[in-house]
Amino acid sequence: MNKRFLDACWGKPVDRTPVWLMRQAGRYLPEYMKIRSSRTFLELCKTPELAAEVTLQPVDILDVDAAILFSDILIPVEQMGMELDFVPGPVFARPIRSLAEVKKLHIPPMEEAVPFVLETIAILRRELSGRVPLIGFGGAPFTLACYMVEGKGSKDFAQIKKMMYAAPEIYSALMEKITDMLIEYLNAQIDAGAEAIQIFDTWGGILSPSDYEKSVLPYTVRLMKGLRRGKTPLIHFVKGGGTMLETVKKGGADVMGLDWHVSLGSARETLQETVVQGNLDPTVLFAPHATIEAEVARILAENAGRPGHIFNLGHGILPATPPENARFMVECVHRLSQK
Amino acid sequence: MNKRFLDACWGKPVDRTPVWLMRQAGRYLPEYMKIRSSRTFLELCKTPELAAEVTLQPVDILDVDAAILFSDILIPVEQMGMELDFVPGPVFARPIRSLAEVKKLHIPPMEEAVPFVLETIAILRRELSGRVPLIGFGGAPFTLACYMVEGKGSKDFAQIKKMMYAAPEIYSALMEKITDMLIEYLNAQIDAGAEAIQIFDTWGGILSPSDYEKSVLPYTVRLMKGLRRGKTPLIHFVKGGGTMLETVKKGGADVMGLDWHVSLGSARETLQETVVQGNLDPTVLFAPHATIEAEVARILAENAGRPGHIFNLGHGILPATPPENARFMVECVHRLSQK
Repeated sequence: MNKRFLDACWGKPVDRTPVWLMRQAGRYLPEYMKIRSSRTFLELCKTPELAAEVTLQPVDILDVDAAILFSDILIPVEQMGMELDFVPGPVFARPIRSLAEVKKLHIPPMEEAVPFVLETIAILRRELSGRVPLIGFGGAPFTLACYMVEGKGSKDFAQIKKMMYAAPEIYSALMEKITDMLIEYLNAQIDAGAEAIQIFDTWGGILSPSDYEKSVLPYTVRLMKGLRRGKTPLIHFVKGGGTMLETVKKGGADVMGLDWHVSLGSARETLQETVVQGNLDPTVLFAPHATIEAEVARILAENAGRPGHIFNLGHGILPATPPENARFMVECVHRLSQK
Repeated sequence: MNKRFLDACWGKPVDRTPVWLMRQAGRYLPEYMKIRSSRTFLELCKTPELAAEVTLQPVDILDVDAAILFSDILIPVEQMGMELDFVPGPVFARPIRSLAEVKKLHIPPMEEAVPFVLETIAILRRELSGRVPLIGFGGAPFTLACYMVEGKGSKDFAQIKKMMYAAPEIYSALMEKITDMLIEYLNAQIDAGAEAIQIFDTWGGILSPSDYEKSVLPYTVRLMKGLRRGKTPLIHFVKGGGTMLETVKKGGADVMGLDWHVSLGSARETLQETVVQGNLDPTVLFAPHATIEAEVARILAENAGRPGHIFNLGHGILPATPPENARFMVECVHRLSQK
């Protein structure tokens, strides 16, 4: 059994640095595309046998030290009563703009709302049978709120920020409701067998550190306190959070995800004993092998052999990435960090 | 004569904090839209009387402490032999991908290539006649290279990074040529009468601190050393540079621009005596007046009365901004910082 990933999450020494890749089950893999080609993205997410199959692909192909559930952060939001489509980016046809719309959102029992997610986790635990740990995940309250209010991705996130500044009562009602939902959703994943949870705050970094602390952190704290953590480590990844690591740390996660905009060495100094995960620029996987190896070596050197480092990309792997380069990167991490 | 802005650039004490807004001449102003409506963006940039007129609009309407030349960072790139269009974002129909294409780029004498820019500056100096200083500007070498290689804006900047990692000889030839051009271009602006220069590195923050230091900083340093600075302060704005301020500072600018992702207080601690410019989140201008005033007060409090702060947004003003809110923000800065 490969416990390298979980041991690193708890800051324990490991034989070599564990590594996985955000979005490791995805479009860059021909094996994934083959399964995806005959169904929509949402259909794939909702078919447990197939979702489990694509989850396992990178474990076999890349030799990573953890599997992560194949799903999407917006899956439970759809179940709150919001019509969701992928074109290919996510789109909510009717974004939330009023208190009445917030009040209409409901939080169904998770075994009814997302049985396919829980079943996928159960299948995966059986099929992995301890080979590598399984990570479950969800979006952070603020990131889900961004999608729900903007209706889709955005360049300046003017709608959510307008709501935050000019209609704080709607904003906070929405954030409270999302937080309630996430506590149910992530606890259901833990109960179903997820051995670690990653919270993706993809858009947390669009705010000033001051606004993040005031308008995001309280909900993150409540979410993290609401989870049955016990033996399940919690990873918190705030993209663009490098300028406010001390604030993000107050969220209370066991592991802090780092994007590639921050130096891992200086982040470790700022965060002291907190375990970190990251932080290779995903585009480095377009580079020649020598560059990939040099970049892996640089990040390992920045960590300076301290326990409590999980190697990862600083963001999701890009669809055009050659799988061979991802595999080579994983091999470099293992070889160069071998004790 | 209002010397507040220039004094602050040199770190001298001022009666109240000077303020201007990135993109202060632009689409959020009905007065701008009126002039823009009957011509293209490029035509407006290339018609000195009109470019001067829109440059002056925010000085009258907002009461800012500096004017900034109305132009675009890609104007001199077009003159290197690259066909440019705005649709409305900038597009180069034939992006640079080979060494042969880099070699074909030429650097024409600036009085022949961009006479309209130099004439706009001359008109502005006459019309401003010392009322407020005039800022000239250009793109940083890396940001121009991003546009020239990607052909347009990008989400992951895979093309420029691939070139940087896999074809460093093409990348460095391109960066050298752009740097040569910028030295000519910005010196021509200084000679024509620009009283400060801002260098916009809009995309510098897409890189890891390590890649920035290795592949961007050397060109920035050469550019800044090549300018006839004398009495002309140099402002360096790297969007997303908050996680690597000490590295960006090595560029050697007089003033460091800060986006809103970094706390101004902690940035000043990191940067010590270096003058800073920033850093209000542009979306705060969608907020009620009370929030705008509170945010201005917060940033002034973070600066704690130290000399060497120019108030600005952390990025360009957004097109949907109510002009009245921008005016109110300027008024708040002046009122709350009054000695």
